[in-house]
Amino acid sequence: MITGKNYIGYQQSAKGNTTYRTINPKLNAENTPTYWEATSEEIEEAMQLAAKAFIPFKQTPGPKRAAFLNTIADEIMALDDLLVETYMSETGLPEGRAKGERGRTVGQLRMFAELIQTEDWRVITIDEAIPDRTPMAKPDIRQMLIPLGPVVVFGASNFPLAYATAGGDTASALAAGCPVVVKSHPMHAGTGELVASAIVKAAKDTGMPQGVFSNLNSSGIEVGQQLVAHAATKAVGFTGSIRGGRALFDIAGQRKEPIPVFAEMGSINPVIITENALQERGDEIASTYANSITLGTGQFCTNPGLILAVDGTNLTHFISDLGAKTAALDAQPMLHPNIHAAYNRNGAAILNEAETTLVAEYNGALQPNYAQAKLVSVAGAAFLNNPSLHQEVFGPFSMVVRCKDEQELLKVIANLEGQLTGTIIAENSDFESLEPLITVLQDRVGRIIFNGVPTGVEVCAAMTHGGPYPASTDSRFTAVGVQAIKRWVRPFSFQDFPKALLPDVLKNH
Amino acid sequence: MITGKNYIGYQQSAKGNTTYRTINPKLNAENTPTYWEATSEEIEEAMQLAAKAFIPFKQTPGPKRAAFLNTIADEIMALDDLLVETYMSETGLPEGRAKGERGRTVGQLRMFAELIQTEDWRVITIDEAIPDRTPMAKPDIRQMLIPLGPVVVFGASNFPLAYATAGGDTASALAAGCPVVVKSHPMHAGTGELVASAIVKAAKDTGMPQGVFSNLNSSGIEVGQQLVAHAATKAVGFTGSIRGGRALFDIAGQRKEPIPVFAEMGSINPVIITENALQERGDEIASTYANSITLGTGQFCTNPGLILAVDGTNLTHFISDLGAKTAALDAQPMLHPNIHAAYNRNGAAILNEAETTLVAEYNGALQPNYAQAKLVSVAGAAFLNNPSLHQEVFGPFSMVVRCKDEQELLKVIANLEGQLTGTIIAENSDFESLEPLITVLQDRVGRIIFNGVPTGVEVCAAMTHGGPYPASTDSRFTAVGVQAIKRWVRPFSFQDFPKALLPDVLKNH
Repeated sequence: MITGKNYIGYQQSAKGNTTYRTINPKLNAENTPTYWEATSEEIEEAMQLAAKAFIPFKQTPGPKRAAFLNTIADEIMALDDLLVETYMSETGLPEGRAKGERGRTVGQLRMFAELIQTEDWRVITIDEAIPDRTPMAKPDIRQMLIPLGPVVVFGASNFPLAYATAGGDTASALAAGCPVVVKSHPMHAGTGELVASAIVKAAKDTGMPQGVFSNLNSSGIEVGQQLVAHAATKAVGFTGSIRGGRALFDIAGQRKEPIPVFAEMGSINPVIITENALQERGDEIASTYANSITLGTGQFCTNPGLILAVDGTNLTHFISDLGAKTAALDAQPMLHPNIHAAYNRNGAAILNEAETTLVAEYNGALQPNYAQAKLVSVAGAAFLNNPSLHQEVFGPFSMVVRCKDEQELLKVIANLEGQLTGTIIAENSDFESLEPLITVLQDRVGRIIFNGVPTGVEVCAAMTHGGPYPASTDSRFTAVGVQAIKRWVRPFSFQDFPKALLPDVLKNH
Repeated sequence: MITGKNYIGYQQSAKGNTTYRTINPKLNAENTPTYWEATSEEIEEAMQLAAKAFIPFKQTPGPKRAAFLNTIADEIMALDDLLVETYMSETGLPEGRAKGERGRTVGQLRMFAELIQTEDWRVITIDEAIPDRTPMAKPDIRQMLIPLGPVVVFGASNFPLAYATAGGDTASALAAGCPVVVKSHPMHAGTGELVASAIVKAAKDTGMPQGVFSNLNSSGIEVGQQLVAHAATKAVGFTGSIRGGRALFDIAGQRKEPIPVFAEMGSINPVIITENALQERGDEIASTYANSITLGTGQFCTNPGLILAVDGTNLTHFISDLGAKTAALDAQPMLHPNIHAAYNRNGAAILNEAETTLVAEYNGALQPNYAQAKLVSVAGAAFLNNPSLHQEVFGPFSMVVRCKDEQELLKVIANLEGQLTGTIIAENSDFESLEPLITVLQDRVGRIIFNGVPTGVEVCAAMTHGGPYPASTDSRFTAVGVQAIKRWVRPFSFQDFPKALLPDVLKNH
């Protein structure tokens, strides 16, 4: 049952006067439940509970924290149709996507549960003493990773499960031993509350300290700002827009005690296609990319928003083919009227620039909130000279940059802002000449995909989901995969400790 | 030979009009050479060279970069007496310290050279493809660490070799494949130039790209500010005051593209002594700590500036014993007249607070720039209520906090700002009761030392030299030991790459 209330630890709470509802973008109508915006008092309570829960939670043995994570996964599955229907009603996304994302979410929880069954993730390093070393004895020093403290998590608008309430940030922070306070995303407050109820039930059932998790409703920016500024907050995880992420990053940096913010933000994910690839299989690539551009109504962080190739007849043909195929796909609703409005506004801004040309757009009838997919083209020189063309248009939108030669193409890449991904589409016969491209592209992105699509982020140990700013605020970390836990931990050293006082995991070599 | 000029890559340069000299604090007189402050033009040249050197340097095989680091070490040793004498003339520190620190410096360079002989430091992670996985094929993803780009290094005033021009920050950044631009410390510009000449010679001799290293003179704050704000700078290493470190952190955070700053700043390094330890060996502890407080004229980041114990006759006796022993040691010069003046000013400010009592101070004659060692005491409640007593007094100064009971002692620790270290002095019979203390202390520090002194930072894999703010600006990293390299690198993933195009190190499982 959705109550519309906040979770302050184990308690539901609705002390405020501000309320809001979510919207079903497909129906273009408000959903029934009313949500209570968290008050300053409720924020304070949640953070104090989190601070109090930190030490007991940190000291909870790994297998017990793992049981907590696995139970969250079980409880999310137990929400069954109610969760899937709420998700669909708040996002306009289809059932298959809801269930797929749910699978990914519980998969991530179970992955982190598996990770903390042993203490290997703490990267145990033991330097034994050398008492007779000259000129000075070497002390015994033993190091392991320990959690930072309470983490505030901001869920993404585009992944109401996998990057939200119990998503990758929350799962990795809880795995590390950090209590989590979630700032619920207003567009899917119901989905968020249901998942929060699963976490709270799991916390109670597995004997976690109250305060290990809270879920705060918020339709504006103040709740998030207060959470980031709160002295008890020790780190922040965010997925969303550059403007939103940067605002939180700035608040965190200006605190008396600055705290790390890992914000995964905008990306246009350049795709480079060689002439040989266009020649050999331009048709197939156009089909693949029409689907990638419109997947999830283009609402993926890794959506291919920029396609680069050297100009020529092959490219001319490819552009019109890709435009036609993109425009021919059925229109789909966007996540929210605001996102739909921003899509139209940002797309129009790009097309208003004199240098851009509309290649094709969906030309069927459009229901409210349904996105009109668009393909645009621009010359390399024009793109280089106009930074406003480098901005993301969140939705089923992509721009082909016609570069006059290989040098201009490399220059375009070198001038891009930081990106989550880059993709190279090439033939075997290109391999020998690709090194300069790979070198320049590597400097701008966190991951390069070869002959594939950037959409679809595999959850595995080798994944880097992050990249140079503004793809993320700290390229030294990843938001996806087991290494995401590193954002919430710090190394700690014990020097010359008696065995009796060392944590068990550091006792023996 | 000291020229007083900047190194812009391989070239010496002195385009500016502002000059300055260093000071011999022991003689209280200026040293002969004149140094040219770097101009904006020289800063620009150095950063552009660094940006240009990045790709070729990054692509230089590990063993070749290792040869560069080892050659720097050789060249530093080849500077021989000139370096030792210059160091002594600019710091007032004795020959033994100069040689010891030189040994540490070349040791660090050789340690990082050893680290990059193989590619293990890149933390290779390989997730092989599972083409027949359902519902979706699993791609092949291979991850390794790559360098961030040019790093700006600010050396410490108190370690003109080990935390300066070719110190831990520079050695770890070069090891990672990042070009380094050093903002030379004005108090030891000559030492800095000599070491810079060793680096430049080594770079030439081992065929490194020009721009892999530059050394810029600066007596004010503008050169450093410009370097941190420069678009080509991708990370910053700093060791010094909270005010200085925070100012650079703020500049870096406010850039269009924010960059990471690892600043290791102030710390008062609390030492907790149990009643049993005071009872059993208070005399020995007082002797050990009188030496630790005054070691290097108290000018260590890990100087024990705060001693905590529960009040009683044992503590009363210990305080007067420690005071007498500290006051009885020979006075030594501080690094610079400015540091000496700040020591007097900050110590006086603490003693001006009504709650503090002077226990003892050195009462022999004092030459100019020689520090008057002081021991001060204060009651726990007064310390808790007055945050200005929590500030570092950089020099041979320590404060004993007389806590009324164990609870007050824990409260004092919990209310401290972040620290590099904490130390526990205890007897075997205390072990069972130490858990609450260890728990509270761990949350405030990066390293706990048991029955030792915090001064002396072992360079080893398990060392954490860092800690919660303001001990450092990012507790997730260490400034000492091989893991210091992690500050300058980011994970990077190759997805579905043909073997022929993968870096060698990622080719095979």
